[in-house]
Amino acid sequence: MINVAVLGYGTVGSGVVEVINTNHESINKRAGQEINVKYVLDLRDFPGDPVEKILVHDYEQIVNDPEVDIVVEVMGGVEPAYTFVKKALLAGKNVCTSNKALVADKGRELMEIAREKSINFLFEASCGGGIPIIRVINSSLTGDEIDEVTGILNGTTNYMLYKMSTEGCEFDTVLKEAQQKGYAEADPTADVEGYDACRKIAILSSLAYSEYFDYKDIYTEGITKITPEDMEYAAKLGRTIKLLGTSRRNEDDTCYAMVAPFLIGRDSPLYSVNDVFNAVFVHGNMLGDAMFYGSGAGKLPTASAVVGDIVDAAKHLHTNIFTNWNSTPAKLRPLDQVSGRFFVRVKREAAEEAKEVFENAEMICLDQLPEECAFITTDMTQGEFCAKAEKLGDKVLAKIRVKD
Amino acid sequence: MINVAVLGYGTVGSGVVEVINTNHESINKRAGQEINVKYVLDLRDFPGDPVEKILVHDYEQIVNDPEVDIVVEVMGGVEPAYTFVKKALLAGKNVCTSNKALVADKGRELMEIAREKSINFLFEASCGGGIPIIRVINSSLTGDEIDEVTGILNGTTNYMLYKMSTEGCEFDTVLKEAQQKGYAEADPTADVEGYDACRKIAILSSLAYSEYFDYKDIYTEGITKITPEDMEYAAKLGRTIKLLGTSRRNEDDTCYAMVAPFLIGRDSPLYSVNDVFNAVFVHGNMLGDAMFYGSGAGKLPTASAVVGDIVDAAKHLHTNIFTNWNSTPAKLRPLDQVSGRFFVRVKREAAEEAKEVFENAEMICLDQLPEECAFITTDMTQGEFCAKAEKLGDKVLAKIRVKD
Repeated sequence: MINVAVLGYGTVGSGVVEVINTNHESINKRAGQEINVKYVLDLRDFPGDPVEKILVHDYEQIVNDPEVDIVVEVMGGVEPAYTFVKKALLAGKNVCTSNKALVADKGRELMEIAREKSINFLFEASCGGGIPIIRVINSSLTGDEIDEVTGILNGTTNYMLYKMSTEGCEFDTVLKEAQQKGYAEADPTADVEGYDACRKIAILSSLAYSEYFDYKDIYTEGITKITPEDMEYAAKLGRTIKLLGTSRRNEDDTCYAMVAPFLIGRDSPLYSVNDVFNAVFVHGNMLGDAMFYGSGAGKLPTASAVVGDIVDAAKHLHTNIFTNWNSTPAKLRPLDQVSGRFFVRVKREAAEEAKEVFENAEMICLDQLPEECAFITTDMTQGEFCAKAEKLGDKVLAKIRVKD
Repeated sequence: MINVAVLGYGTVGSGVVEVINTNHESINKRAGQEINVKYVLDLRDFPGDPVEKILVHDYEQIVNDPEVDIVVEVMGGVEPAYTFVKKALLAGKNVCTSNKALVADKGRELMEIAREKSINFLFEASCGGGIPIIRVINSSLTGDEIDEVTGILNGTTNYMLYKMSTEGCEFDTVLKEAQQKGYAEADPTADVEGYDACRKIAILSSLAYSEYFDYKDIYTEGITKITPEDMEYAAKLGRTIKLLGTSRRNEDDTCYAMVAPFLIGRDSPLYSVNDVFNAVFVHGNMLGDAMFYGSGAGKLPTASAVVGDIVDAAKHLHTNIFTNWNSTPAKLRPLDQVSGRFFVRVKREAAEEAKEVFENAEMICLDQLPEECAFITTDMTQGEFCAKAEKLGDKVLAKIRVKD
């Protein structure tokens, strides 16, 4: 029997208990032993809930119990998660977590402790909810050198952009609706400003390129400036707008990573990833294009990923599973030197000037927006683009990156 | 150093050597040891090719060399692959294969030998080329009970159907073009009749439901009867036609599996899987919907999947990786009892009769096809459907399954 302690009985924590209870037979078979939830840690009480009998309020009871083999951290946030997880690993207990903030901030150190102790620190559920992208990069695409990872990594903002594109509503209206539906939190900053996606692309990039990406160094732009007018142009261009976390390894071994809204075309497999779904696109030097799609969040999909890690930990209680993540910091190329195309909206009176500055850019005009027009630039570095856009000053109404 | 012998220097075999050479540094790092191709077995000679020096014509040299740790079988076909692989396993050598015919036909026995010997028989590349779907089902979705697997599992037919839908050409024209491009073989039977997809859905279903699916028991219908007219109706209905391998586990623990062309709608994540791409959709009782997309065939994507298995075998040379595939045959529900909807084309003069037989089915007429009309049935068992369709006799011009 493998004894598990679940830290935090919130959405994911209660989901983990539910998955283990519902599928216990097949899970035990795959783990090779019975998986038993021995403790649930939470500050609250849950009178009448089946976990009442195994609920503890004091973490010391868990970390000091030699029968606990696996600690499942699903509290979220860096503290006290970090302190608890570190103690568990130092006590020789395997840890599975869904906590992207913890992994992005302290993952390096925690993986190192796990390696030294021949145990595991697993975090499949930290990126992409139910999409098993971490194990795919770590254990399946081992014959490949990955040169691009691009994902729709945040379900809340994907839902909001989808609603804006299909129903033409304003950002604020959609945000309120998302909050009412429970898709967005009361303080939506982490989602709409891209901070959540930033931590996820930092984790995925660190795994994909085996160099450490510090999330604090990643340029991050949210979706708060996106308007229904942007969506109208996107539709006219046969495109849509998605918040992407994207990173690339260049041939000179430099990398870049960023989070920003992008106009993407119908040819992209990410184009039809709608609603609260997430997807991660990966390009490998041998594999070519691949994409992994699924529920980006939600109680049970995320819990399913955590339980997948519990099964893996159960099979490798005293063997460290190789994680392709090392401590060498990635050489990030300055964003100014990163090339791409841009969608730009300008005041109608600046159309001729814009054509001059942007080398005969082809103007698109919409009947319903008579006071402006828009265009897509040729490929240029962001430095060049900013210099050119500056010449147009406040005649520029909006600029959004374009992904080919 | 881990010594590998590659059986067969055709498309996939030469790809495996190329992947190992190109990415040797990262592959060795992930395998924890140097991966060395010690032998290549082929009946032919390859004068001037770098493998010339390690080429052997006699399999005994490989199987009797105690230095060979991993045998890579990429010859295709059941024999002599089966004899070679069995000998390798009995000699204690791990085996990685891309051979779906071998896995579908003999996989059960070969996995059993590997288990007894504490070695591995790995076959990631046998389904979906570069898509790492086998390891995902086997090692990631272990917290879930999967109840549906549906895939576009054959690149050749997906390319052909895509061309038929976008360019309106006839089956024969598209087949010739596919053959000229090297996408279809001179004898295209295995692809266009669905036999290839049948073996793949048998393998995926056996893994997903941990019951053995015999490919010989799976109803298989190819794409040879699909016409440009079918595609015109599909477009009118906002749908497209794809060859799907699909299986389901029902709540009463019966299963079904089939390969057939289906009309699928825009809401399906499989709708926009075009060209030679493959994709596998999986539904889990906790995970919900997930989809995995990538190159379905091709030298390097398939070779990349084989090399991923080589790395895994190198890390588990003397430890059997649990495979969720057992020998209990699946209880297949007779096809007659499987429910679904059907798209039916009838002669225009039979429209009223068809409405009567199919309970006020709504008729769709296309201007360009004045002598016929079509409709989609309500949900009914295939037995019911056949009985009804029989009443219309030769007034039925075409019938294709519909997937919701």
